[in-house]
Amino acid sequence: MSFTIKLQLTTATHAYCNATFKKNSYFSNFQSKPIYHSNPLIQVLSFQEKMSSLPFSSPKGNGTIKSSLIDPDGGSLVDLVVPESQRAAKISEAESMPKVKLTKIDLEWVHVISEGWASPLRGFMRENEYLQSLHFNCLRLKDGSVVNMSLPIVLAIDDETKEKIGGSTDVALTGPNDALVGILRRIEIYKHHKEERIARTWGTIAPGLPYVEEVITSAGNWLVGGDLEVLEPIIYNDGLDRYRLSPQQLRKEFDHRQADAVFAFQLRNPVHNGHALLMNDTRRRLLAMGYKNPILLLHPLGGFTKADDVPLDVRMEQHSKVLEDGVLDPATTVVAIFPSPMHYAGPTEVQWHAKARINAGANFYIVGRDPAGMGHPTEKRDLYDPDHGKKVLSMAPGLEKLNILPFRVAAYDTVERRMAFFDPSRAKDFLFISGTKMRAYARNGENPPDGFMCPGGWEVLVKYYKSLQAQEADEKPTVLSA
Amino acid sequence: MSFTIKLQLTTATHAYCNATFKKNSYFSNFQSKPIYHSNPLIQVLSFQEKMSSLPFSSPKGNGTIKSSLIDPDGGSLVDLVVPESQRAAKISEAESMPKVKLTKIDLEWVHVISEGWASPLRGFMRENEYLQSLHFNCLRLKDGSVVNMSLPIVLAIDDETKEKIGGSTDVALTGPNDALVGILRRIEIYKHHKEERIARTWGTIAPGLPYVEEVITSAGNWLVGGDLEVLEPIIYNDGLDRYRLSPQQLRKEFDHRQADAVFAFQLRNPVHNGHALLMNDTRRRLLAMGYKNPILLLHPLGGFTKADDVPLDVRMEQHSKVLEDGVLDPATTVVAIFPSPMHYAGPTEVQWHAKARINAGANFYIVGRDPAGMGHPTEKRDLYDPDHGKKVLSMAPGLEKLNILPFRVAAYDTVERRMAFFDPSRAKDFLFISGTKMRAYARNGENPPDGFMCPGGWEVLVKYYKSLQAQEADEKPTVLSA
Repeated sequence: MSFTIKLQLTTATHAYCNATFKKNSYFSNFQSKPIYHSNPLIQVLSFQEKMSSLPFSSPKGNGTIKSSLIDPDGGSLVDLVVPESQRAAKISEAESMPKVKLTKIDLEWVHVISEGWASPLRGFMRENEYLQSLHFNCLRLKDGSVVNMSLPIVLAIDDETKEKIGGSTDVALTGPNDALVGILRRIEIYKHHKEERIARTWGTIAPGLPYVEEVITSAGNWLVGGDLEVLEPIIYNDGLDRYRLSPQQLRKEFDHRQADAVFAFQLRNPVHNGHALLMNDTRRRLLAMGYKNPILLLHPLGGFTKADDVPLDVRMEQHSKVLEDGVLDPATTVVAIFPSPMHYAGPTEVQWHAKARINAGANFYIVGRDPAGMGHPTEKRDLYDPDHGKKVLSMAPGLEKLNILPFRVAAYDTVERRMAFFDPSRAKDFLFISGTKMRAYARNGENPPDGFMCPGGWEVLVKYYKSLQAQEADEKPTVLSA
Repeated sequence: MSFTIKLQLTTATHAYCNATFKKNSYFSNFQSKPIYHSNPLIQVLSFQEKMSSLPFSSPKGNGTIKSSLIDPDGGSLVDLVVPESQRAAKISEAESMPKVKLTKIDLEWVHVISEGWASPLRGFMRENEYLQSLHFNCLRLKDGSVVNMSLPIVLAIDDETKEKIGGSTDVALTGPNDALVGILRRIEIYKHHKEERIARTWGTIAPGLPYVEEVITSAGNWLVGGDLEVLEPIIYNDGLDRYRLSPQQLRKEFDHRQADAVFAFQLRNPVHNGHALLMNDTRRRLLAMGYKNPILLLHPLGGFTKADDVPLDVRMEQHSKVLEDGVLDPATTVVAIFPSPMHYAGPTEVQWHAKARINAGANFYIVGRDPAGMGHPTEKRDLYDPDHGKKVLSMAPGLEKLNILPFRVAAYDTVERRMAFFDPSRAKDFLFISGTKMRAYARNGENPPDGFMCPGGWEVLVKYYKSLQAQEADEKPTVLSA
């Protein structure tokens, strides 16, 4: 029996490594588009197309997966993709319903909800869920238990759409390209109090919050909640879909690998050697705690990000180089995309980032300085107290079962010429290289100190910033001499 | 045994009625000050003086009161007034500590905390409590249970005071008149992120929020938390102290009366007959539910209120008339002052209002339209959705044991010529008299329709507005003709 298990582990690990990292089949059609700076248009592909692009062949959505991993919130993983046998009937039903057209970011949320990242949430929030999320950062279930839910996951509609819906109880959702995406059942329409939503979510209403400007300012004055059914899995057809593993697929992968601990690392930036040091050190600590096979979920955020963040495709290429260069061990690492859009809502958002990873099977969550934070949009300071994120996360209702691992500060050790955990007793030996500084290096074609990032990963960034500069030069209007 | 109980009930009830309502001894020295429009200066009187002004002679603070009433949050009622035997030693200890000078409203919070309204909170919040309150509206206790705590109860200090405190672990608190008030032990100083506090508490940062302008804008950039000890009970020497019953005193009174249900009515406005209808109807409903002796806690808020609210002394006089005129039954009503300052923070604050009444023994809480709400300070609309307060309250963590009784809408029935529950089938017969309209009537010396408010209560308001107008006329600068 133990032999069988070992065999299974070895096979699964090798299969994954071979497919993804060694033979590099994954990256063969990676980065096919010359445009780095904008997300590819979202498209809805067929279920079969999505399935065939997955890095392993397990069928999705219909079987219950047995697992010794942490339970999903609410006890079972939500999966809102309608079975293929019912699809035709649902489509014909949906065609007769009032239509609600989704934005690109609405569709990212449909993706998130449909795969169960927000389990036990089964659709866009009705008002009771919205109010609990806004005021308590959690939802109480019928059995009295509490799950974390710090971000309102809502769908805004304008007056005209509300008028069109009239008294209908169900509506059809269509994508930005007008294709049918799903159905929202037993809907409830309620007021979109934007100012209050923004203030309670971000702790400010200062102009310049990226998600607010992109999504909320122009959104309608109503929110529509209801139970979601998605006609087909959401895919993006951007060469990265195989990285978009659902919580169910991730759990299956962790089970294949016989993981007895899963530690998640959320990021929206390139991985430098300080990150890698931390992730490798975390694995060592988990082994020292007695875990036999801790698996790292390296889980870059794949939805909406602000304009000056490094785009997803570049980041994925950079991450792949980090693994190719051996900075992280492919045998104990799963790289996948977390499909949520980014709010930059600091202590409120970090709870969402952690909660969603519980649903994907992670029982350890690494949290750093100022998670999901950014500079204040109108004042010269961080928007959030850099320590609040981990404090709030460690006290958040519904996250008691998750082990929070605070980030140790890493910096460049100029003596050892490598990234190392900061040692206050010889502080002068350490060099802190901020994201801004890193971008400046890359933009100016300068190299950071040796050992800051693996060369392959650094090259990806330099290439990106060069392409950006070339594009900016092209776009600059000709200035006539006065 | 049942005879004894009955006797006890009868005696207690009669004693209270006689003292307070029938012989009117309570009101004999009521409203002694000619100035209605400002709160009297807060002063700290001796323990003995406060005790002697109470409407009943039960000693306070040292004995545990047995009760069948709802448990206070955390299991036992916090009482932070130091025993008289230790007072001298504590005073001498406090005199050598760094001093933190309290504002009038800080002192209201010291009052609130010291009497256990915020049980199990034992002092001004440290950062962990502050963050939980701000993000989750609740605190998790060591045993894993959760209590509601929606408002941050914090003490701000400026840079200079922080400097003065230095590394001290304990500080002495002094009142606005520099008298020693108490000690804060094992302090923690942390940053006062004002914008975030305001946004998360009020759901807006628009200028013109009364508590923000009065308290937060001018407050220091640091918060200091710690365990509170109060040297003497806080009293105000304004003729109203006998109404300021602590949660322990209220519980004792409800026990005296053998209350088997206590329903609290929070208000900061005069009582009209619509309110009275609601309170009397609630009692009828509780009797119909099988309760034998439901007691009403008519519980006006006594701390800071905005400038255009009716001042506390006028309200107390008005409430006394309502009882004298027989609109409410003194035998089943306890009138007392809730010492908290008002935030006008709508759905966030109503939780605090309800939670504090649990600590005072109430197991039913009446909630109306837009509780603790106000107009948006810069836009022509309510600041909060008028329905959010009761929805949020009914879902709030830590308030599960409290029965929420939604307010039924009362209006003036022009056919029956009395306040009645609104009947949509004959909507045209009903007249809604808003607070603004009520004030306009009183200001203009007009009478509202018969049956809107008892004549004695109305007279109090007319007298107040006349005195206000007289004062405004006095203050108006003489305008010379052009």
